[in-house]
Amino acid sequence: MPKLLVLALVSLGFPAFAGGPAAQESAAGAIRTVLDAQQAAWNEGNLPKFLEGYWNSPELTFAGGNGIVRGYDGLLERYRKSYPDRKSMGTLEFSGLEVRPLASDAALVIGRWHLAGTIGDAGGVFSLVFRRFSTGWRIIHDHTSAQTMTP
Amino acid sequence: MPKLLVLALVSLGFPAFAGGPAAQESAAGAIRTVLDAQQAAWNEGNLPKFLEGYWNSPELTFAGGNGIVRGYDGLLERYRKSYPDRKSMGTLEFSGLEVRPLASDAALVIGRWHLAGTIGDAGGVFSLVFRRFSTGWRIIHDHTSAQTMTP
Repeated sequence: MPKLLVLALVSLGFPAFAGGPAAQESAAGAIRTVLDAQQAAWNEGNLPKFLEGYWNSPELTFAGGNGIVRGYDGLLERYRKSYPDRKSMGTLEFSGLEVRPLASDAALVIGRWHLAGTIGDAGGVFSLVFRRFSTGWRIIHDHTSAQTMTP
Repeated sequence: MPKLLVLALVSLGFPAFAGGPAAQESAAGAIRTVLDAQQAAWNEGNLPKFLEGYWNSPELTFAGGNGIVRGYDGLLERYRKSYPDRKSMGTLEFSGLEVRPLASDAALVIGRWHLAGTIGDAGGVFSLVFRRFSTGWRIIHDHTSAQTMTP
């Protein structure tokens, strides 16, 4: 029944493409769960678990005051260098998260980060582009800015 | 002929949703044209024309070292304050542009900016999220970082 098959595909497909309110709610919830897990992993001193929120690909990009870092391995190396032990990692908190759906499998997230560390506090804003993979939502691009903050 | 109509919609619709090579090429070209126009407008000292590359909405966001600026009007005001005349604007150049399609109507663009000014040079990286409107592709979110550069 080719006609019924096509109609079934269309009726299944359109809500996903259009990203109706229910789908958007579920995407936003799933993305917040990834970021909550990242925050928890950081605060447990678990960098590899923190990195699980990122797309494990050489095409992953991370932009900031130092230019553009490419690839999951480069990002892990950079984090390991900057935060060699649990103590240096301090306590990370994300706040003011806004999830803006772009498609059924893509979203922009903006928010603030705050890191309470042993040598003072740091913080700023970030912009994340998420994509949905078969394994779940992952950050494919991160742009993070730092602001000097009074401790 | 409902079946033919559905098939026609599907065959018309899928390339747009899937964003095949031809559609992606055309989106990337259209986005580059917007950024070329922005660069030219800046270098003509025409701020309102430069701002035409942005989504004219209170929901437009601009993130950076100073936090998050919201709305087209806020962004225009901020630019007018920072760049009160042609001379203060210097010469802007975008380079290393990478357009990464996210959907038929959404794309991530990363690149570098360089501003040669009267009081020295500035530059850094930016991440832009573009959406396609009936009026064309516009930036809905801009995250720009500055690096100190030797003139």
